[in-house]
Amino acid sequence: MAFEKVKRDENYSEWYNNLVKNADLAEHSAVKGCMVIKPYGYAIWEKMQQQLDKMFKETGHQNAYFPLFVPKSLFEKEEKNAEGFAKECAVVTHYRLKVDPDRPGKLMVDPNSKLEEELVVRPTSEAIIWNTYKNWIQSYRDLPILINQWANVVRWEMRTRLFLRTAEFLWQEGHTAHATKEEALEETRKMLDVYAEFAEEHMAVPVIKGIKSENERFAGADDTYCIEGMMQDGKALQMGTSHFLGQNFAKAFDVKFQDKNSKLDYVWATSWGVSTRLMGALIMVHSDDEGLVLPPKLAPIHVVIVPVYRTEEELNTISEKVAGIKKELEKAGLSVKFDNRDTQKPGFKFAEWELKGVPVRIAIGPRDLQNNAAEVARRDTKTKEVIGMDNLVNHVTGLMDEIQQNLFNRAGELRAGKTWEANNWKEFVDIVENKNGFALAH
Amino acid sequence: MAFEKVKRDENYSEWYNNLVKNADLAEHSAVKGCMVIKPYGYAIWEKMQQQLDKMFKETGHQNAYFPLFVPKSLFEKEEKNAEGFAKECAVVTHYRLKVDPDRPGKLMVDPNSKLEEELVVRPTSEAIIWNTYKNWIQSYRDLPILINQWANVVRWEMRTRLFLRTAEFLWQEGHTAHATKEEALEETRKMLDVYAEFAEEHMAVPVIKGIKSENERFAGADDTYCIEGMMQDGKALQMGTSHFLGQNFAKAFDVKFQDKNSKLDYVWATSWGVSTRLMGALIMVHSDDEGLVLPPKLAPIHVVIVPVYRTEEELNTISEKVAGIKKELEKAGLSVKFDNRDTQKPGFKFAEWELKGVPVRIAIGPRDLQNNAAEVARRDTKTKEVIGMDNLVNHVTGLMDEIQQNLFNRAGELRAGKTWEANNWKEFVDIVENKNGFALAH
Repeated sequence: MAFEKVKRDENYSEWYNNLVKNADLAEHSAVKGCMVIKPYGYAIWEKMQQQLDKMFKETGHQNAYFPLFVPKSLFEKEEKNAEGFAKECAVVTHYRLKVDPDRPGKLMVDPNSKLEEELVVRPTSEAIIWNTYKNWIQSYRDLPILINQWANVVRWEMRTRLFLRTAEFLWQEGHTAHATKEEALEETRKMLDVYAEFAEEHMAVPVIKGIKSENERFAGADDTYCIEGMMQDGKALQMGTSHFLGQNFAKAFDVKFQDKNSKLDYVWATSWGVSTRLMGALIMVHSDDEGLVLPPKLAPIHVVIVPVYRTEEELNTISEKVAGIKKELEKAGLSVKFDNRDTQKPGFKFAEWELKGVPVRIAIGPRDLQNNAAEVARRDTKTKEVIGMDNLVNHVTGLMDEIQQNLFNRAGELRAGKTWEANNWKEFVDIVENKNGFALAH
Repeated sequence: MAFEKVKRDENYSEWYNNLVKNADLAEHSAVKGCMVIKPYGYAIWEKMQQQLDKMFKETGHQNAYFPLFVPKSLFEKEEKNAEGFAKECAVVTHYRLKVDPDRPGKLMVDPNSKLEEELVVRPTSEAIIWNTYKNWIQSYRDLPILINQWANVVRWEMRTRLFLRTAEFLWQEGHTAHATKEEALEETRKMLDVYAEFAEEHMAVPVIKGIKSENERFAGADDTYCIEGMMQDGKALQMGTSHFLGQNFAKAFDVKFQDKNSKLDYVWATSWGVSTRLMGALIMVHSDDEGLVLPPKLAPIHVVIVPVYRTEEELNTISEKVAGIKKELEKAGLSVKFDNRDTQKPGFKFAEWELKGVPVRIAIGPRDLQNNAAEVARRDTKTKEVIGMDNLVNHVTGLMDEIQQNLFNRAGELRAGKTWEANNWKEFVDIVENKNGFALAH
């Protein structure tokens, strides 16, 4: 492996960067601040998307798609929101390139294509969406509107980190409209619960639900709720936010509805989002010095099978056996990779699949076949066991639940180990100044 | 219904616009040239995506994600490609807004945030992707690369039509890299076949595979293959393209690999894409004067059940019966909507679900219950039958295949009826000048 190993406790930040690169998850692109999400990283993101999308639909939401561009005059309508994002806006000012007369074969921006009104590349979509909802809402019968969008957004960033902070990122943004404040507040909390459930049951990351202080709030929100997880370095990472927007956007875009008593009122709103930043959390919470550790529920490959052989005849016998095992594991709903490359030795393959975080590895050699058994290795605990063939499929499928649960427990213990109780102000200050982790204050 | 009906043979283009709007598929947005895809329209697009994604993965492709922005210096590297798209490029020139000192509460582009190098909003991703592949490819062992991306792209358009031609649209773009010309050509044709299979078996649209003339080719391609369907007005619509890019992008971005004999050569490339334009084709081929007609394989709702009742007691008895039917239909894999709104009459509901193209409608009233039967209406043929309850689920699931096949056959007949054989040049000219449709020339 060309994998330059950096240990977590030597340089946590560099360990992270190295891991993202070496496990083929993502890389920096030629565009400052933008990343390329590589197929293996994208496959994990797809698993997250599928599960979240299912949960959104189960809670009554539908997907839709709104424009990438927001005309400046719409963008600035909700003033707090506009001011909050103004400093990070990529702006489209022209709509054409032309051949540069001074540099043959090169292009220049055509000055004659200047837009009358500049377009902001959406940093978030409240403005364009509320300008649309305006035409969809007349009466209480049109409410609630429960819509989600999967999209790319751009928030200009100079200091970027793969997945954690990039100028362009992928996310989902829910935007809902309600007839009452209570209903909107309920939605805000419901979606926070959905995020927490996703984080804990699928990412195996225990989270704390919180509410942001006034100056940390989403620009334009009355309240911002969030979930935070603890990374292995004891630092908190915000993993998702759910905003109660009050009537701010309804007022800015003049969105009123007639209630059951024919009274006109402004509509109540929420918005909520999680992004590819979740990839960063997933990586930072579970992985180790050998590489990625993935919870089975989000692993693109659950099981890798590595043949251990010297002759082609041995490989053939093993391959025959593996075909049956693979089929049975797939029937049980697992994704299985048979790594029969003849260009690499088993040791190399072991290290590579460890780096990629595949939850279970099965190694089979001629002696295993004689004993009607196989060696099963867990990525999370790095333990190995020899398991009889008759029980192999059963054992491996059972391991998936066990690993998922173990990762969650382990992350919980890590958090508990870095959470200090403060019984008075002095203790609290001591924790904040001298310790890494969470402070539990009364 | 507030649906202003326009008949196909009165004004085909207006019929289309009306239908897209009234069936809640999409609408124009406040951003010139960009559309909002509404939940019902997006649900159909999601069905298309899921099926195409499955077919891409079955043919060995993986998804990934590349940046939205392309630095101008990269964009212009493949000259033909750059020139071909230069006239339609949205360009980001600044990365910040600031408060406008002359207009309190309003924003202006911060002149101090001018980018050193302008960024093109991707009209297509060959440039950014080949600049990335350059670092991924050294040897024949790194090939082939078979990657697809689901993304939004922008091609500036003044005269737009919902789904058919919009400045921003959603699409997928496959970008593959190969060691030999033959392999790249095979990939180009394979993906054209995938598109044709999708169009015919899922969209129920018969297509003709063709090859573009030199001046219709994708800018930067050596050859462009396409599939075209015939709309009801006899006009052809391009539904998907697959490009053989030769070594053009490899040369522009200097992407070489070492073959098995250690010889250096440029990599061979393909790219292929379909977009939300497919929605336009789907609508135009099957729909009628009453509204949308959807093939069951792409319908978000397969069956709508409408209760016909006067008293609440009647509704309760019907609802009880419907619960069982719904469950059984869902067990058979169908998506079922029970429209029990008490604000609308059955006639209104019938018209609404016809407008939305739901393939099958079941109506149940007290007399049906007495007779242990229900009225089943097909959207495609507008025929109705009374079906015994015992056979209902079986009958309706069978109808799905029948409707799918009927739509395909009907579209095929329509095309045959507008295809004229030309046996000599005079006949060919006559067809082109006087007839709508396809001309079959020797």
